[in-house]
Amino acid sequence: MSTETAPVTHDTPDADAPALAPAEADAPAHDHATHGYSPAKAEYLRRLRRIEGQVRGIARMVDEDVYCIDVLTQVAAVTKALQAVSIGLVEDHLGHCVVDAARQSPEAGAEKVREASAAIARLVRS
Amino acid sequence: MSTETAPVTHDTPDADAPALAPAEADAPAHDHATHGYSPAKAEYLRRLRRIEGQVRGIARMVDEDVYCIDVLTQVAAVTKALQAVSIGLVEDHLGHCVVDAARQSPEAGAEKVREASAAIARLVRS
Amino acid sequence: MSTETAPVTHDTPDADAPALAPAEADAPAHDHATHGYSPAKAEYLRRLRRIEGQVRGIARMVDEDVYCIDVLTQVAAVTKALQAVSIGLVEDHLGHCVVDAARQSPEAGAEKVREASAAIARLVRS
Amino acid sequence: MSTETAPVTHDTPDADAPALAPAEADAPAHDHATHGYSPAKAEYLRRLRRIEGQVRGIARMVDEDVYCIDVLTQVAAVTKALQAVSIGLVEDHLGHCVVDAARQSPEAGAEKVREASAAIARLVRS
Repeated sequence: MSTETAPVTHDTPDADAPALAPAEADAPAHDHATHGYSPAKAEYLRRLRRIEGQVRGIARMVDEDVYCIDVLTQVAAVTKALQAVSIGLVEDHLGHCVVDAARQSPEAGAEKVREASAAIARLVRS
Repeated sequence: MSTETAPVTHDTPDADAPALAPAEADAPAHDHATHGYSPAKAEYLRRLRRIEGQVRGIARMVDEDVYCIDVLTQVAAVTKALQAVSIGLVEDHLGHCVVDAARQSPEAGAEKVREASAAIARLVRS
Repeated sequence: MSTETAPVTHDTPDADAPALAPAEADAPAHDHATHGYSPAKAEYLRRLRRIEGQVRGIARMVDEDVYCIDVLTQVAAVTKALQAVSIGLVEDHLGHCVVDAARQSPEAGAEKVREASAAIARLVRS
Repeated sequence: MSTETAPVTHDTPDADAPALAPAEADAPAHDHATHGYSPAKAEYLRRLRRIEGQVRGIARMVDEDVYCIDVLTQVAAVTKALQAVSIGLVEDHLGHCVVDAARQSPEAGAEKVREASAAIARLVRS
């Protein structure tokens, strides 16, 4: 039995990013209230709750001795869902934090690019 | 902040696979009570609960506006943990279901190999 | 026997890329002579020649009936080497083309980020 | 500029594989002439030659300063082609070497499963 819930596609957040409050103008990339993903925060939370439920579903499958291959199919689906979250986070990070830093100064841009590249490398290798 | 819990290695289960009940003799690979992962069921459940907690932790990070890169680091860690679960499941499946089928007949073995290969392909591509 | 012939789609892009019109001189991210990877071009060429040699080595292993697992180990090594090339190209692209575009205008930055994110998504999924 | 020189580790098996001793004639999974992929050898060689040509094409793209994103697209395509080769090799290996070993004895099967699982883990992580 493969519950096989959720092929879990979902295409990146997006949406009507709310305009940034004026106060944030001077520290665009690091303040507490806004990060790349902030405009789509509710959407990310919704996706993560869903993934959490899927992991719980896999535990249930194991507990109920569902056939190995069906468990594996579901693990692959959740892995893909997590990767989709990462890809969304990377895009949001590049579009906000990295672009903002680049507009501040070439050095700030270079620093953020180095950091983002290391994170992308971890994703590609994960 | 990356809790970065759990490198989650896990050295495959294995262990003293319980003897199959007589009734199961004729369908060793599909009965309800034993699958490849059955001997290590408690261990898989423990790992899955931990992954579930890590996903919940990522949602909390997003909710608290933790810096994008730290969220990404944690997502990559959970992705790796899920892959480790898959790899364990594949090994258990090959070692039990596939080997048992091969010992029944070449045809049964070939059938299980086809199915396992498709699952492995989904993993490699996920 | 796995017919499994060639998912290997994709036939290389273009080649005969049309020469860029002179008018493009003022578009810093697109001119013929400099791309993100240009400063490290010799190094990329060196790595790609090496990968080419490794692929040839794998063909030789298959031709000489080397044990499957040893062939697989080598294929995994080459896959990793290619991923390392991609990661380098992404970093160079972000650090040059994307940062330059962001410094031109927010719109140009956003456009390059979209394009880069799509490429990163292809890598993470490949 | 990404120094990022060559993670490209991988220490090739290659070469000087010692000739197999005649005594091994009775070990069906290890003799020189037949491995899992042997029946499809010509097909694998064809695919590997094609991948070799694609890698050469990527070097040409870099040499001719083709736009980064187009180079990346092509690298992702070649990575996928290599993964498809690996998946085929795994399937052939399971269907021949592993099934044959399992039919010899449970111990021989278990040994091959361990080895195959380690190779699959390298693929999933590559």
